Amino acid sequence: MPGYSGTKADYAKRMRRIEGQVRGIARMIDEDEYCIDVLTQVSAVTKALQAVSLGLLEDHLGHCVVDAARAGDEEGDAKVREAADAIARLVRS
Amino acid sequence: MPGYSGTKADYAKRMRRIEGQVRGIARMIDEDEYCIDVLTQVSAVTKALQAVSLGLLEDHLGHCVVDAARAGDEEGDAKVREAADAIARLVRS
Amino acid sequence: MPGYSGTKADYAKRMRRIEGQVRGIARMIDEDEYCIDVLTQVSAVTKALQAVSLGLLEDHLGHCVVDAARAGDEEGDAKVREAADAIARLVRS
Amino acid sequence: MPGYSGTKADYAKRMRRIEGQVRGIARMIDEDEYCIDVLTQVSAVTKALQAVSLGLLEDHLGHCVVDAARAGDEEGDAKVREAADAIARLVRS
Repeated sequence: MPGYSGTKADYAKRMRRIEGQVRGIARMIDEDEYCIDVLTQVSAVTKALQAVSLGLLEDHLGHCVVDAARAGDEEGDAKVREAADAIARLVRS
Repeated sequence: MPGYSGTKADYAKRMRRIEGQVRGIARMIDEDEYCIDVLTQVSAVTKALQAVSLGLLEDHLGHCVVDAARAGDEEGDAKVREAADAIARLVRS
Repeated sequence: MPGYSGTKADYAKRMRRIEGQVRGIARMIDEDEYCIDVLTQVSAVTKALQAVSLGLLEDHLGHCVVDAARAGDEEGDAKVREAADAIARLVRS
Repeated sequence: MPGYSGTKADYAKRMRRIEGQVRGIARMIDEDEYCIDVLTQVSAVTKALQAVSLGLLEDHLGHCVVDAARAGDEEGDAKVREAADAIARLVRS
């Protein structure tokens, strides 16, 4: 079970909302809306996705990484390394 | 006409692809896929949206801001200020 | 003259303050302060640098890019392209 | 002992280099260098600080968070929450 299983329904709802926002931006472009207004919506979606990432990451640390730390040194180290790489991708995206 | 009108079809296509990616992430969550794999996909979508923003912004500077600069000092200043605010939102999102 | 010449003294003061903050972080590390406290200070410096970048960029758009737009199509296009590249570096950093 | 104590000398060296880069930017501004060149250097410093943050965070997860996870549920939860907040500040800065 993934670390987010306790809050899965919440993530599902947030992703559906984000999908609707993305579709809304496509429509704005189709209707020639003003560049700045489109940009504002794109920033809103990026922020929403970032919030999802931060939530997933906290769930992951609190379950998968904590469990691995308790399972042993090697398991803990591997999960920490993997989480650190995911954080780096998040910070740079 | 917005600054992106010359490349509108390209943006429409990119937004459709992003919509598909968002739907794919919702499916991954639904199927209990591993947290880190979900995070990797979310980072990919964030990067794709960021590329759309940077493109829209360049189109906006090259058309709307340049036109305003030529129309007069006041028009130019107003558009520069508005673009700077959009850039700040983008950097902070 | 660069686009920031009207606010040069202000940037000089901000960079001196940032230099002091960086020195403060080095001292925190030297005195073995808690990781999270060091991280909080690094985030504060990153935010301060980002604010400097956004200011410089707005000055640049309002002077160098506006002037180039008025000088001609080719000049305007070249400055817009260059500014867009700087914005992309800023967003990705 | 903080999580970074094993790599403390390396961080000290990196912070000294960053301090030098910040001083270099102040000098560029003082000498009226071109806006875009100043911006490029500010982005370089921001990237260097981000790399320091990611390193400190990995050290913190690998030592403080892992130790807390082993000490007990409450200790683990508290450290995970604190780390997640630091990651959020980092992503948003």
